[in-house]
Amino acid sequence: MENTSKKQTTATQVISPEQLLQHYQGHRKLTRKVIETFPENDFFNHSIGGMRPFSEITKELLAIAVPGLTEIVSGANGDFDENKDYGHTKAQFLEKWDRDTEEINKLWRQIPLERYQEHITLFGQYEGTVQSSILYFIDNEIHHRGQGFVYLRALDIEPPFFYNRD
Amino acid sequence: MENTSKKQTTATQVISPEQLLQHYQGHRKLTRKVIETFPENDFFNHSIGGMRPFSEITKELLAIAVPGLTEIVSGANGDFDENKDYGHTKAQFLEKWDRDTEEINKLWRQIPLERYQEHITLFGQYEGTVQSSILYFIDNEIHHRGQGFVYLRALDIEPPFFYNRD
Repeated sequence: MENTSKKQTTATQVISPEQLLQHYQGHRKLTRKVIETFPENDFFNHSIGGMRPFSEITKELLAIAVPGLTEIVSGANGDFDENKDYGHTKAQFLEKWDRDTEEINKLWRQIPLERYQEHITLFGQYEGTVQSSILYFIDNEIHHRGQGFVYLRALDIEPPFFYNRD
Repeated sequence: MENTSKKQTTATQVISPEQLLQHYQGHRKLTRKVIETFPENDFFNHSIGGMRPFSEITKELLAIAVPGLTEIVSGANGDFDENKDYGHTKAQFLEKWDRDTEEINKLWRQIPLERYQEHITLFGQYEGTVQSSILYFIDNEIHHRGQGFVYLRALDIEPPFFYNRD
């Protein structure tokens, strides 16, 4: 349970940093379920209309989350690399996903409330505020995961429920 | 330009109500572009893997935005109706979309900051806070629009840029 002082802080926020973290991690749990739902081979090979397979989309999401938050925390710019090699099995991708879940929790707690409206440039080129950048990370994940839902349906596989974030 | 007192309010927020409105309307502008990009016939008939055509998805989005915000503002529960008839042309859907854009702006300004953490039940069944409900509206739109992007790619049509919200 929250203590009274925390409740008072939350009451004056549209969404608190902790709530935004839970929101993000809830979406990441759903994306993890989508990765799990793909048959091993289809995760690496199935696509529609010349788009990327879901393994390549997952690489993009991994290239954004921890590297992006690391830049926000450190203020140092790095390169955006969506072609890193995480292995050739779903299990290896899921292991990296879970390590990043912990890393995101650690990084998040190093971003004080006062920084969310600060103007930043990520990966040397993407301008915004801390809040608009983080919302972009989340929106981009939802957008591409929606793509993954269609891939699964085209394979006659039922995707996880969109509202399930546990 | 914002005045100083508004800036001070914003500085203590992760995201202010006005910023969240602009975020939502930016996403709605992108969804509008997706509707515009569909060929007339495909908007009503094209789909993949037994999913709904984008016109039906649009009906769901219209059933959520203004009706949901109306419930948040009024506190009164109504029915969720994603099968309303908006006509049989893209132009009719776009006209409704634009009317709702104005309506959303009006409703939003009737939700004071203090209400975002309030617990509510929408459409008689969906429990959450005002903020989690509004984020769900936005996330659901991003999710289904991602589906629409795949429909367009499968038709060999380039979707609008995801980052374009103007």
